[in-house]
Amino acid sequence: MAKINRSCVVGAGTIGSLFAGHLGTVIESTVLTRRINHAHDLNIRGLQVSGKSDLHSDIIASTDPEDLGDIDLVIIATKANAVEASARRLAGHFPGAAIMTVQNGLGCEEVVARYGDWPIISSVTFMSGIRHADTHVEYELDTATWMGPWAGGKADYELVQQIEKLLKASGLKAKAFKDLLPAQWSKLIFNAVVNSVAALTDLPHVKAFAQREGFGDLGHLVYAAMDEGKRVAAACGVELFEDPWEMNVEATSHGQSGDEDYAHAPSMLEDVRAKRLTEIDWITGAIVREAEKAGIAAPINETLYRLVKGKESSWVFNNPYKN
Amino acid sequence: MAKINRSCVVGAGTIGSLFAGHLGTVIESTVLTRRINHAHDLNIRGLQVSGKSDLHSDIIASTDPEDLGDIDLVIIATKANAVEASARRLAGHFPGAAIMTVQNGLGCEEVVARYGDWPIISSVTFMSGIRHADTHVEYELDTATWMGPWAGGKADYELVQQIEKLLKASGLKAKAFKDLLPAQWSKLIFNAVVNSVAALTDLPHVKAFAQREGFGDLGHLVYAAMDEGKRVAAACGVELFEDPWEMNVEATSHGQSGDEDYAHAPSMLEDVRAKRLTEIDWITGAIVREAEKAGIAAPINETLYRLVKGKESSWVFNNPYKN
Repeated sequence: MAKINRSCVVGAGTIGSLFAGHLGTVIESTVLTRRINHAHDLNIRGLQVSGKSDLHSDIIASTDPEDLGDIDLVIIATKANAVEASARRLAGHFPGAAIMTVQNGLGCEEVVARYGDWPIISSVTFMSGIRHADTHVEYELDTATWMGPWAGGKADYELVQQIEKLLKASGLKAKAFKDLLPAQWSKLIFNAVVNSVAALTDLPHVKAFAQREGFGDLGHLVYAAMDEGKRVAAACGVELFEDPWEMNVEATSHGQSGDEDYAHAPSMLEDVRAKRLTEIDWITGAIVREAEKAGIAAPINETLYRLVKGKESSWVFNNPYKN
Repeated sequence: MAKINRSCVVGAGTIGSLFAGHLGTVIESTVLTRRINHAHDLNIRGLQVSGKSDLHSDIIASTDPEDLGDIDLVIIATKANAVEASARRLAGHFPGAAIMTVQNGLGCEEVVARYGDWPIISSVTFMSGIRHADTHVEYELDTATWMGPWAGGKADYELVQQIEKLLKASGLKAKAFKDLLPAQWSKLIFNAVVNSVAALTDLPHVKAFAQREGFGDLGHLVYAAMDEGKRVAAACGVELFEDPWEMNVEATSHGQSGDEDYAHAPSMLEDVRAKRLTEIDWITGAIVREAEKAGIAAPINETLYRLVKGKESSWVFNNPYKN
């Protein structure tokens, strides 16, 4: 592939803004927005990144892909539920671009592939931030984004290495994998359990998620649910990159922040608190579907999955204005 | 046993008030209260029952069992979590009385037996009401209370039949069983699933609990969880009186109320909405413990159990005044 000169981020939420802001320091960074005001503000003010980075980038933004010119790399950084709508907007545009998906869970690459024959790169990101405004994002956890060629498409490892270099040059952490599935599944199992347990209990990711002493301790459930996820991965022929339970113990040991009282609120918990549709179908639902395909039982993940679906339906049922 | 002349209800919430109010029409009805004001009001105003019954009874009430005189029948109608405290207050009193427990779940009889050698009657009730005041309860669902001699004690079937006659004479529906376990377990499995799924999804007992068409439908979970409960019952040598899944289909078909929009909010959902400790340890927790004793797996009920325990702990964790 030729040099990557121009990028386009679709979905400039927290993660998307972190990508667009950093990339703007090394190449031309564009953003495809939904809101006209969002594009307007980005065009006038650019993007400020504070926190772990301290930078400002000029941004070219529009609600219409036609306005953005030629693009070499598209990063779709919306929530999983919005990937289909994003891909539909990209259809027929950016013929020379590679597209990288950065969603939680499994299955977004297939959705993108239905709208064009771009090379597709799978990725999972562990970075996090706080979005203070359309034009200002704070870079919180400066952890890596992992990328690999999507097995169902025509992207190759060299392209992934090129993007790795670009992201690193822009100040982000990145790692290219020949096969991302082992890492993707490790994060999938971790997310499927931590997100749905948090969403259902209204607990952020606290130490209790790793405690297995008392009979009622939550760690028993988290352990058993992750163990079940690992059996599903094995049945799908995936050898995990990291052990999800160890990721869970590590994440709840609070080494990273140094603050004893800090506990991360997983995105699904934030969604449930805001009564927004969650990514459950892409995360825990993906494990349930893969288990079904592989012909093995996954009763715990199935229970978590259906409870979150039930919780989503309660917002409609309990809405006093429904009639 | 001699004639039952005087009863004492411990825990005059909705169910306790329904018992005390009806019994007062045929025998002397006393109530052991926690609050002095509650006893005071009952002594002055008695108990009014409206709705399916229309009656008024004089009540003798006190916070001290010594004030209530001889008692032939004690009905403990508190929530399961309060049975221990109630039994402790009864210790050393009412030597001639039989004690009937009316809690959800399993295990309250053992707790009572630790505080005295009264004959103990197990019961489960399906009646419901609305408590408008300390001295007024509305009788809503006039369904039966089922009773049987507790297998761990010295109560016999004749005593249970005597109580059945007494309750019927007072205007309540009642049915004596030689062995209550089959009925108790049917209700246990039903309650364990319906209550915890409602508590976790924030859905009342709506039709969705019986729907099994779509992949994400809640009925799949309810069915699988009840099926698991049935396997636990079988492993414990209990043959069920009614099929919990059929009870679920029946209860969500709304035949009883005739109101299409009506859906019952199970008590555990009410507890969770009010951030009160639930009866999870006595209900879903009982199934998990019995499964463990019988050496069989119950992953779905275990998941429901630990999620509700986690939810209870979130009220402490998320309390902004905790420090």
